[in-house]
Amino acid sequence: MKVAIVGASGYTGLELIKILINHPKFELVYLATSDGDTELSQLHPSLESVFNTTVQKAETDKIAEIAELVFLAVPHKTAMNFVKELRKKEILVVDLSADYRLKKETYEQFYVPHIDEENLKNAIYGMPELYKSEIQKAKLVANPGCYPTASILGTIPFLEFKAKNSPIIIDAKSGVSGAGKKLSETTHFVKVNDNFFAYSPLNHRHTPEIEEKLSLASGENQKVVFVPQLLPLTRGMINSIYITIDKKNSDLDFKNRVEEFYKNSKFIRIREKPPTMKDVAGTHFCDIFVAFDKESNTLFVQSAIDNLLRGASSLAVANANLMAGFDEYLGLPTIAYNP
Amino acid sequence: MKVAIVGASGYTGLELIKILINHPKFELVYLATSDGDTELSQLHPSLESVFNTTVQKAETDKIAEIAELVFLAVPHKTAMNFVKELRKKEILVVDLSADYRLKKETYEQFYVPHIDEENLKNAIYGMPELYKSEIQKAKLVANPGCYPTASILGTIPFLEFKAKNSPIIIDAKSGVSGAGKKLSETTHFVKVNDNFFAYSPLNHRHTPEIEEKLSLASGENQKVVFVPQLLPLTRGMINSIYITIDKKNSDLDFKNRVEEFYKNSKFIRIREKPPTMKDVAGTHFCDIFVAFDKESNTLFVQSAIDNLLRGASSLAVANANLMAGFDEYLGLPTIAYNP
Amino acid sequence: MKVAIVGASGYTGLELIKILINHPKFELVYLATSDGDTELSQLHPSLESVFNTTVQKAETDKIAEIAELVFLAVPHKTAMNFVKELRKKEILVVDLSADYRLKKETYEQFYVPHIDEENLKNAIYGMPELYKSEIQKAKLVANPGCYPTASILGTIPFLEFKAKNSPIIIDAKSGVSGAGKKLSETTHFVKVNDNFFAYSPLNHRHTPEIEEKLSLASGENQKVVFVPQLLPLTRGMINSIYITIDKKNSDLDFKNRVEEFYKNSKFIRIREKPPTMKDVAGTHFCDIFVAFDKESNTLFVQSAIDNLLRGASSLAVANANLMAGFDEYLGLPTIAYNP
Amino acid sequence: MKVAIVGASGYTGLELIKILINHPKFELVYLATSDGDTELSQLHPSLESVFNTTVQKAETDKIAEIAELVFLAVPHKTAMNFVKELRKKEILVVDLSADYRLKKETYEQFYVPHIDEENLKNAIYGMPELYKSEIQKAKLVANPGCYPTASILGTIPFLEFKAKNSPIIIDAKSGVSGAGKKLSETTHFVKVNDNFFAYSPLNHRHTPEIEEKLSLASGENQKVVFVPQLLPLTRGMINSIYITIDKKNSDLDFKNRVEEFYKNSKFIRIREKPPTMKDVAGTHFCDIFVAFDKESNTLFVQSAIDNLLRGASSLAVANANLMAGFDEYLGLPTIAYNP
Repeated sequence: MKVAIVGASGYTGLELIKILINHPKFELVYLATSDGDTELSQLHPSLESVFNTTVQKAETDKIAEIAELVFLAVPHKTAMNFVKELRKKEILVVDLSADYRLKKETYEQFYVPHIDEENLKNAIYGMPELYKSEIQKAKLVANPGCYPTASILGTIPFLEFKAKNSPIIIDAKSGVSGAGKKLSETTHFVKVNDNFFAYSPLNHRHTPEIEEKLSLASGENQKVVFVPQLLPLTRGMINSIYITIDKKNSDLDFKNRVEEFYKNSKFIRIREKPPTMKDVAGTHFCDIFVAFDKESNTLFVQSAIDNLLRGASSLAVANANLMAGFDEYLGLPTIAYNP
Repeated sequence: MKVAIVGASGYTGLELIKILINHPKFELVYLATSDGDTELSQLHPSLESVFNTTVQKAETDKIAEIAELVFLAVPHKTAMNFVKELRKKEILVVDLSADYRLKKETYEQFYVPHIDEENLKNAIYGMPELYKSEIQKAKLVANPGCYPTASILGTIPFLEFKAKNSPIIIDAKSGVSGAGKKLSETTHFVKVNDNFFAYSPLNHRHTPEIEEKLSLASGENQKVVFVPQLLPLTRGMINSIYITIDKKNSDLDFKNRVEEFYKNSKFIRIREKPPTMKDVAGTHFCDIFVAFDKESNTLFVQSAIDNLLRGASSLAVANANLMAGFDEYLGLPTIAYNP
Repeated sequence: MKVAIVGASGYTGLELIKILINHPKFELVYLATSDGDTELSQLHPSLESVFNTTVQKAETDKIAEIAELVFLAVPHKTAMNFVKELRKKEILVVDLSADYRLKKETYEQFYVPHIDEENLKNAIYGMPELYKSEIQKAKLVANPGCYPTASILGTIPFLEFKAKNSPIIIDAKSGVSGAGKKLSETTHFVKVNDNFFAYSPLNHRHTPEIEEKLSLASGENQKVVFVPQLLPLTRGMINSIYITIDKKNSDLDFKNRVEEFYKNSKFIRIREKPPTMKDVAGTHFCDIFVAFDKESNTLFVQSAIDNLLRGASSLAVANANLMAGFDEYLGLPTIAYNP
Repeated sequence: MKVAIVGASGYTGLELIKILINHPKFELVYLATSDGDTELSQLHPSLESVFNTTVQKAETDKIAEIAELVFLAVPHKTAMNFVKELRKKEILVVDLSADYRLKKETYEQFYVPHIDEENLKNAIYGMPELYKSEIQKAKLVANPGCYPTASILGTIPFLEFKAKNSPIIIDAKSGVSGAGKKLSETTHFVKVNDNFFAYSPLNHRHTPEIEEKLSLASGENQKVVFVPQLLPLTRGMINSIYITIDKKNSDLDFKNRVEEFYKNSKFIRIREKPPTMKDVAGTHFCDIFVAFDKESNTLFVQSAIDNLLRGASSLAVANANLMAGFDEYLGLPTIAYNP
């Protein structure tokens, strides 16, 4: 199946390319950026001699001629403009932006007015652990954010055991690539190196995505206390999740429960020891660790992912696999950047 | 006042030296390691031409002859052997090890049998915010650990507002220097660089120190859920602390409360924004940030310190200042390693 | 073809495994360490669910039963003991240690007495750019060191243009993984992070390997001034090479010359801009840059490799490919760890 | 003596402040940036509670009223506008930009047309090792660049022993703070972290500064082959310098020579082992190491400095000390950021 990438210059665009050039069933036939008109090796010198091709200026007509599915790796707001056009032409779309992840009201509160309600209604949230069969039939998939992916995967197995009305505390830590390639004071090397700090604590715009999806999954309103923090490293994300367990569940073997919950998920590993960033960096794996403090009925969970892969590009390919009728895991990266 | 350092080769030993060579009232007259017989510039080449002196093999007789106060920066167990001898000779001691921080039973559960109960009973826990007047009269001060220092300073102002029986969640992150100079797999550059991971979650031996001191301070049993994590950076520690606030206190202005609580503490800064490691690294400051999530009655606190200074060596000098009758803050470092 | 790895626990062992589990023609049937008796995922948690297998205690008899070719990723001195046994049993060997790289006299000057002269005489130096046809017929290949690989690839195209009797200056910089997994002060995170320093300048034991091979290749005695330096990063190596060009050659287009020289080498890229570590890390590529200072007749060359791959494990697989009659480049990694 | 800083927001501005607030004889009475109208702790949160003051919008009239000497830490071109005004008002100036370092022709070739020839003619190059007595009488000092400082200090002791017409090869490595606070692709954390690369090899605009000063110092035309490289660390600079020694000097003890040369320079340390970045970071020290390769008559020198201090701000204070008639070394930082 012929596929296209719009937004080839960023980190998630690069990761998509790296997966797709070796994918057994997708053929990458079109690459675009907003400027276009360059060689791929100019954008990404590491790909010289690996995949030599020209990068176009994005045009939906041209895409419709040659590709059946498009990966959109462009900023929010830009994305919905493309989706509107591409869906008119019946192209399948995996959108990596935030534009189709949230209910209209929530989206507009945190971003901008939405211009494509029609497709927003029919978009499927691309988390196969929750919506596999819907994704298989979807025409437009909203690829989850990296913080929500790690948070939701580490939380959903335990929602049914949680004490009523207790908040879910998520102390999240991300590598700098999560902030994208755009220049900002926060991503200047001198600001980040040998440093560590939180940003937008209790106030980050990924919070509503996490709350909305956990509430949907559990059928109850879920409250999340979310604190994102920036690590002095390039890729990966580890979230510490603290859940108050209902006393009646305090004798459960939670490791056993999560193993059972994910027994069919080949790319989720339940770990004996706390996960490390470098064991997931470069892969589609989500590593999960649980420990229970019986005295306080507090469950401690850590979930680790590569923010650019499981948190973006390899998840996008998994979603595309499902939309195309392939095996979910076809062509996904398994071998970590370790050491 | 003439002072000595036993344990000059490690990181905390080096930091003590760096403070004491410019201290207006302490004169550093004796430096020792377990091996001795070397030049200081051999141990710490950065001090060549700055402070040229010989490092001895530690002998308590010799120390007693020339110094009135000793800083012990040696491993636990080794420390109590020295303390026993030094106190016999009536030398004042600031002990940076864990040997005199805990009740006998707690100590022996996490470390080894204690051989110096006599002094253990009379040792004062060296946190001036809690025990300033006791330290002024003390002969032996047990200098707090770095995790307990950051945890306690970030927690005590809020204990009175906490919901009964709720645990205090501490998601702690430390730079690698906290693990000391000893070689281990965990401190190998390749293991730590571009990586991040927790160790001993819910199970770290600093937990009882935090619980014991918070319980003493509040007059109630306090339960701490403590997760230490290793950051890929050299120095500094930031602890995220989550406290469930009693509903009746949910209208308080917590920032205001903590400012009031620490209004006389020159080296505690209440911050408008989350603290960063580099703003405290190199100094005695503890930076504190608070934000309250009213919906869930969860108070989020971050406390940041330099683990080697406020978490060890500059705190030791503050304690020595008090023991010697000087101003608590005399000669303490104020200017951060930033950028 | 069935292959074995002895020395599975180190960094180069891990890289060999990562290449071989996806290699189209080699089947990895045996993994050993000096201790043995463990699961691979215990040694390398990143491989859990990717390649589950047992690691043995190394026994040459057992190896001979099931494998045709062995990769030896063990320390020097240990290696020659294995080679002696394995060659008796006619197993093909790629030895990643220094044991068979040098002439006996040179080896013994820098290492220990050699115990396997017989095989030493017949070992082939595994640099396909110099000895491809010999490697194709070899039974024992001595895999080059990382510093020599980057140095030689960056130097040989220009030896014929060099001014007589001028030394070759190599200012080399390596990531910390080049020092191996063994614990040492030099590889402690706190020693390396935010730091940079040279070690063994003019005196490193890779110097004779570089000089011997360059002298052989050029038919003249070559003198190298070699300074290795440690970078605060995990993987990769970039060598700055300064060559004094004979005045009669000062009008040559050196970029053109090196492109011509390596026109059949798919994994050598001649770059327009100075290479970066991250464009080669994770791959078998060697990136080369040249610039000529006409005023002083100085040619500046930079050669960049992944020290663990082109400088060790992927080169070992390339050599094994040739020994087995396969295409040199079969199964070698092309996609960089970037970002 | 009352002093002012114009350009308080950048890294060198911050370092000037950190030195001056503890300086025994300079009183920092005025701080300005191009925007002004803010609190110092807004610009540099690390200085909160350390030095609370207001930052003005730079006005030369106001400066002239209250200060006798100004440190200019603004970009080149901006600097000469200020100098022109300030010198009219007879204010002493230490200019940290490139505007007064070079001969007019050289400056205009690499930068922009010069608008202040008058003062350019009388500016003194602020390297006390070369021009101490001139600086003592100077009204305007052009503070050297960081690359030239490290390069010149490592080279001048050996110029008299160099082989005629041989180039000086300088393989330089700098921390990222040398590039300043301005945002650029090159200083994005993801670009630099775990990476290493050269920029502008053979072509950097610091080359003419080095060549001009070495030529002046030696009375001969000196040719430099200069390659700057970016290290994944915040502060510090180490230059590898390769000098071809005239055969007649090949029996000299070069370590002895450089010790003799710098015997009165308290802040130059001749090292037994290659210098490390962390031993000079945070200080005014320049650490120098020499080793001689007799076979090739190549002298290898490494010079290490803190690029923001010896390479900028502490050197500026040393120059100001001399201009004010104080001891050169008054108030300069001696204690390294190590660990």
